[in-house]
Amino acid sequence: MIAEATRRIAADIRRTPLLEMPGWGVLKLEMLQLAGSFKPRGAFNRMRAAGAGEAGVIAASGGNHGVAVAAAARSLGLRAEIFVPEISAEAKRARIRGFGAHLVVGGATYDEARQASEARAAETGALVVHAYDQPEVLAGQGTVAQEWEEQAPELTHLLVAVGGGGLIGGISAWHRTSGVTLVAVEPEGCPCLHDALAAGRPVPAPVGGLAADSLGARQAGSHMFPLAAGLHAAGRLVPALVTDEAIRSAQRALWENARLVAEPGGAAALAALMSGAWVPPPGAKVGVLVCGANTDPGTVA
Amino acid sequence: MIAEATRRIAADIRRTPLLEMPGWGVLKLEMLQLAGSFKPRGAFNRMRAAGAGEAGVIAASGGNHGVAVAAAARSLGLRAEIFVPEISAEAKRARIRGFGAHLVVGGATYDEARQASEARAAETGALVVHAYDQPEVLAGQGTVAQEWEEQAPELTHLLVAVGGGGLIGGISAWHRTSGVTLVAVEPEGCPCLHDALAAGRPVPAPVGGLAADSLGARQAGSHMFPLAAGLHAAGRLVPALVTDEAIRSAQRALWENARLVAEPGGAAALAALMSGAWVPPPGAKVGVLVCGANTDPGTVA
Repeated sequence: MIAEATRRIAADIRRTPLLEMPGWGVLKLEMLQLAGSFKPRGAFNRMRAAGAGEAGVIAASGGNHGVAVAAAARSLGLRAEIFVPEISAEAKRARIRGFGAHLVVGGATYDEARQASEARAAETGALVVHAYDQPEVLAGQGTVAQEWEEQAPELTHLLVAVGGGGLIGGISAWHRTSGVTLVAVEPEGCPCLHDALAAGRPVPAPVGGLAADSLGARQAGSHMFPLAAGLHAAGRLVPALVTDEAIRSAQRALWENARLVAEPGGAAALAALMSGAWVPPPGAKVGVLVCGANTDPGTVA
Repeated sequence: MIAEATRRIAADIRRTPLLEMPGWGVLKLEMLQLAGSFKPRGAFNRMRAAGAGEAGVIAASGGNHGVAVAAAARSLGLRAEIFVPEISAEAKRARIRGFGAHLVVGGATYDEARQASEARAAETGALVVHAYDQPEVLAGQGTVAQEWEEQAPELTHLLVAVGGGGLIGGISAWHRTSGVTLVAVEPEGCPCLHDALAAGRPVPAPVGGLAADSLGARQAGSHMFPLAAGLHAAGRLVPALVTDEAIRSAQRALWENARLVAEPGGAAALAALMSGAWVPPPGAKVGVLVCGANTDPGTVA
């Protein structure tokens, strides 16, 4: 399913480069992707696989997913309606509008905006593109794992930030039988996968802290959970929690040492390595996904 | 000489990645190099080829070259003295000190600082690492051309920013007989190569504008000039001038479209393409060198 997605979206997305950094391992620079995060992979795959028609597409997100759906819809010549919560930042709203999408303020919280978007989709027949909990979205995000493996087949451990779990779910599906170990990194303030693994099922979790705008999901996705739990049971998916201070330090280190900008969620995976929240075993060949840069660049210096 | 330099500095520098951008061509992300610019290539090659001893190394520069020599010296365990002019920015001075170099304020202008550094080198026996006008420095900068050709042998036209000419000189040497055409991009405020090609020899030129801190050389280098003039006579080196507005637009476009930060000098090559100061001929496969990012990242958004 992921190999199929890779073929399906090959002309839509960028093949993002790697940068080898002594002491950090092999960074995959996915924040250089179209629309500034990995999210267009899932958005394009959902749109192309499910076949959006005249009614266009609809999504709920005030953040990277909303920007990605707007960008993908413009690229494919589709109408897009993006529902955002009242708390969403004006800068992100402007970016969504900038890609030509129709923006609707759909309630006080993300959940209200999502419900409003689904009611609207039922009226219009637009294709719903979920932020993380749809099989085509998972498969699209999983294409980053196939691409990375082609670029650096030697890696044994991959550090990946987790929000609602679309990205780690897709990567788990790709590496189901590969022998690679995944380190699933969450901020202490948004631990929904950590809590789900502890409970044995997705459960409501806190949403807060520096990276909440990109990693703050209330509950891990239903499609990703069995994939992650299966790898976890096999000892090949390790959860790690990082502090906001570690995230800020990783953002600064990326700028100081490599002139790279990452948003807090995009720097979380590196934060786990730099802070010692996860320690590589001897002989590990480590890869770190830098997955988003939709932030004010002045904040990283 | 360049192939030898590539082997000599292979373990010292980063192999910087490419990013293919529709409409722009193939960007080489050299601003992700150690110390934030291409300059360590020449600094390491000079230090390793000429063999710096106990007395260490000495350089004059308040900018990228000073930072690069400080970084290279630390990496090789050498003492470094960096002479800066009074006008140099405190942020750059702090970065030079941060790499452990001894910083000396050596006069009002770059020329005074350079003279002071050479007087000091005559006393101490330290190895002088020139910012652009030494054969080993040219050969080191030229390694970026060999690396780029290995990564993207299909490119027919390369856009490169020009300051004193160490970088374009080294790239000219590598492509002396290759058939690739070089576009040598200078800001209107710092046209020293443009003026030298018009005069038939390096002549004093104005130094001003947005990119003067990295591209502002008073006169093109004596070692680079015959290389560039030879290619120019053969129609394979084309000078192009860009405005400060075009440079600022290119910096913003790099951030908006690819989440990349470039300093003004680092964005000048792309500015020539985006502004139409240079127009690719039909069928051209274009490469653009983004050569530095030592700036306040808040200025690119």
